[in-house]
Amino acid sequence: MRGRFISIEGGEAVGKSTQIRLLAEALRADGRKVTITREPGGTESAEAIRTLLLEGGADRWNARSEALLFAAARADHVARLIRPAIEAGGWVLSDRFIDSSRAYQGVAGGLGDEAVLALHQFGSQGFLPDCTLLLELPADEAARRATLRDGAGSDRIGGRDAAYHASVAQAFRTFAAAEPERFHVIDASGESHAVQARIIAALAHLAA
Amino acid sequence: MRGRFISIEGGEAVGKSTQIRLLAEALRADGRKVTITREPGGTESAEAIRTLLLEGGADRWNARSEALLFAAARADHVARLIRPAIEAGGWVLSDRFIDSSRAYQGVAGGLGDEAVLALHQFGSQGFLPDCTLLLELPADEAARRATLRDGAGSDRIGGRDAAYHASVAQAFRTFAAAEPERFHVIDASGESHAVQARIIAALAHLAA
Repeated sequence: MRGRFISIEGGEAVGKSTQIRLLAEALRADGRKVTITREPGGTESAEAIRTLLLEGGADRWNARSEALLFAAARADHVARLIRPAIEAGGWVLSDRFIDSSRAYQGVAGGLGDEAVLALHQFGSQGFLPDCTLLLELPADEAARRATLRDGAGSDRIGGRDAAYHASVAQAFRTFAAAEPERFHVIDASGESHAVQARIIAALAHLAA
Repeated sequence: MRGRFISIEGGEAVGKSTQIRLLAEALRADGRKVTITREPGGTESAEAIRTLLLEGGADRWNARSEALLFAAARADHVARLIRPAIEAGGWVLSDRFIDSSRAYQGVAGGLGDEAVLALHQFGSQGFLPDCTLLLELPADEAARRATLRDGAGSDRIGGRDAAYHASVAQAFRTFAAAEPERFHVIDASGESHAVQARIIAALAHLAA
């Protein structure tokens, strides 16, 4: 039986990696084979592109080169990790996927959603997750967590200004509203196990 | 006065870098400011992508990731080196440009010419050279030179098989026939200064 591909999306410091870890534990306890991955990256070649994307000065890449690099990394990730794993019956949980490119480069970066989707069509035949979990925090809580994280140093993209990140958050909400069957918006506030319980409830329809 | 952008195209070991060096000398002797560059690469960021593209095993990248990486590198090269240099009145000579992506990834690699041109439209607004010099050798002479070079080690793309390189050569001829105003096909056989004389004659119309 074919597995499932789940992407976890949301802004900086919203708790994506904690929730992915807890979800993997729950799925494994339920007897499923789970692969945790991330974007940009996930394969050896795509991780090499990740290094180019996240290191260096703010102006290392213009918006168009950046979008092309994300699409190149994603094409490798889909072809060599995600598709083979779900065809073998496993569940794949990815920390970010195409909707991050749509929100960050397409909307907040000004390239347009259609252009980013066209690159994804070229690179990965437009491959989409079975389910996308959008983790959301109230704006003041998101800002507080992002500030805490800044102490540990943010990368080229996480370090962009508040207006950019507000535009990203609005874009994610728009995408979720446009595709209610694929997206599940999860309230990411409160204690991590409470958030996880909301995620498990949202995924009940896939676990059959 | 706006400068000129000239790309030099052709298969492996056809003499492109020697001819670029001789052409730069001739243009400088004529009082012009000349920048020699190459693809993939030409800027610091694009050279980092070049390293990803040309190193590693034959299967390091699938064809689609490869085409996206070339487009990402080219977008940086056009925006940060080529356009500023010609806007400042200089001449830019590039060892390969978009027509190599069209021939290698589009035609020989099977992605299609339209798909490669669409990536170039996205990344670089479809920017084209003022003139493209296509260096051509008779097939037996091209094979002999490529074999000699193999001794020095060829890269991920140069090392592909003879059928691939024959398809590349045919693609270049097709492009040249379709755009006779931009392309000048140069017989690259014989002594290097004789080839250079053919190039100078072909460029006479630009030098005014």
